[in-house]
Amino acid sequence: MIKLTYVLLGLLSCPALAAHAPHTQPEVRVGIVLFDGVQIIDFAGPYEVFGAAGFGVVTLSHDGNPVTTAMGLTVTPDAGFADAPPFDVLLVPGGDVHEAERDPQVLSFIRARAPSSRHVLSVCTGAFVLAGAGLLDGLEATTFTPRIDEFASRYPSVDVIKDVRWADSGRIVTSAGLSSGLDAALHIVARAQGTERARSVAMHLEYDWKPDGGFVRSRMVDRYVPRSLEAAVDWPEDLVMHKDISVGDEQQWRMRFDVTSATPADDLLQRIAAGMDRAPDWSREPRANRWTSHQEGRRVALLLETTPGTSAQDYQLELRVHAEED
Amino acid sequence: MIKLTYVLLGLLSCPALAAHAPHTQPEVRVGIVLFDGVQIIDFAGPYEVFGAAGFGVVTLSHDGNPVTTAMGLTVTPDAGFADAPPFDVLLVPGGDVHEAERDPQVLSFIRARAPSSRHVLSVCTGAFVLAGAGLLDGLEATTFTPRIDEFASRYPSVDVIKDVRWADSGRIVTSAGLSSGLDAALHIVARAQGTERARSVAMHLEYDWKPDGGFVRSRMVDRYVPRSLEAAVDWPEDLVMHKDISVGDEQQWRMRFDVTSATPADDLLQRIAAGMDRAPDWSREPRANRWTSHQEGRRVALLLETTPGTSAQDYQLELRVHAEED
Repeated sequence: MIKLTYVLLGLLSCPALAAHAPHTQPEVRVGIVLFDGVQIIDFAGPYEVFGAAGFGVVTLSHDGNPVTTAMGLTVTPDAGFADAPPFDVLLVPGGDVHEAERDPQVLSFIRARAPSSRHVLSVCTGAFVLAGAGLLDGLEATTFTPRIDEFASRYPSVDVIKDVRWADSGRIVTSAGLSSGLDAALHIVARAQGTERARSVAMHLEYDWKPDGGFVRSRMVDRYVPRSLEAAVDWPEDLVMHKDISVGDEQQWRMRFDVTSATPADDLLQRIAAGMDRAPDWSREPRANRWTSHQEGRRVALLLETTPGTSAQDYQLELRVHAEED
Repeated sequence: MIKLTYVLLGLLSCPALAAHAPHTQPEVRVGIVLFDGVQIIDFAGPYEVFGAAGFGVVTLSHDGNPVTTAMGLTVTPDAGFADAPPFDVLLVPGGDVHEAERDPQVLSFIRARAPSSRHVLSVCTGAFVLAGAGLLDGLEATTFTPRIDEFASRYPSVDVIKDVRWADSGRIVTSAGLSSGLDAALHIVARAQGTERARSVAMHLEYDWKPDGGFVRSRMVDRYVPRSLEAAVDWPEDLVMHKDISVGDEQQWRMRFDVTSATPADDLLQRIAAGMDRAPDWSREPRANRWTSHQEGRRVALLLETTPGTSAQDYQLELRVHAEED
């Protein structure tokens, strides 16, 4: 009778029965690699997706002991690498991967288990770990937008692509940053059980999944800010800058920083302007802290300005980017 | 120098520095109530949002001991209720809340701490817990779509609204199901620090947040399937039905079930049809398993059909809903 009750409730109310009544022998099994510094949403989003799809999920760490996530949550994995059960999907989340990317135990576990996995999925900077294990050589891959250039330069044998929410290279799928893991995990469900099934899981999660991609952070126009700028500026030694706002779209972007420094606003502006003046391919407009550049068939403009704060040592710096078709 | 390095990296790469360098004295502190059966994404999504916004986050359970989430993950909270530090935002996630909704320790902690919280946020079925604590009386609130009718009938003093991703009743915000918690948490960031700041956090998460709402699961047309149907059908005792697909939008919906029963497909169809025939406000069309109804200025059609499976005892049942303007 319990089974029947489940069934009837399921008819009208529970789109993914499996979420609350896991199969005892799930059709698809997932192994999630955890490590200190792992980003919560990177594994929790896909965990929720796979669980709702009726997949069996186990969490794993090198010694099976609790891990501390990037923001301090303590999670106890189901098993250590040595006791890891068989699985069909290997999930490598991101976060602070500085150690995981170089950890021989993590890398050797991933190298050992990837070949027997039907799908391997990295989320966010988890792509650095897959690349560190040598699994992405010659394949298309993507990662967390702010680190995508570093990824390309550190792993030149990876074909890094920048304009997707996830990159499907066959057995290996890499997703962009953080929340993108939800979408890429749904893509794995689609690969395993069909797009309609994945869309059903997304509906259960009340999530607006786009099977063809969706929101792509790396297409936003802050990507035109010259990467050389940071190193090209003679920054004051006492400078403290806190990025307060960083928002926009594929046409315009705005960053606002709260600044504290004995260097006055005008002086800081001139230092950054001198750095911009040295940026290749950018031309300064007369009588303005405004530069233009031509990139990818678009005319891009970058504008710097400061606004006074409560004291001479506290002010705001704004950087704006606009792009329009040439 | 470390601070400066953070700053410079922050200029170009890290939209929400706070995600990796939490304030030692965060401006906003969040307390998350955990319990056995909590849904991972319900707390992990908001945790990620609040952490990226630089809020301080603590997780709490009644005794401070580890909790087992709805899908089996073990999480160790930072403190028990008795040792909970002060906080500004109280987060009550959902999941399997059958016990939490009635647990005197959970309810009394929420009742004690809600008045001193600037914001109270429930996610998914966490609204049942807030309602159980009496916090939603006379307020607009929403919850997980499949349980929204039950919510309204069990808590008649709550003004249940069905067509929002989150309901803002001032101090108390209730979100719809699962992934909606990300959006409602961003709304809390907007309430605390402004919409541009919340949009910046969403950009860091690579998440397509819509400050005005966005995707609303409860607007989909499966809501027109008569709630009385489940009880009105003479279901075979041996029936096992697994909902395989349940997907659609605001115009059409499709559910497909894998059925196992000694009752043949045609007989099952006739039993369900008899149930539909008893549904008030629905009229059957001649010579078809198709019913129509007029609801909310729309003409709604419901269609039942079966398709043969691998044996007489295994087949598929489909239920389709269409709605068009009258």
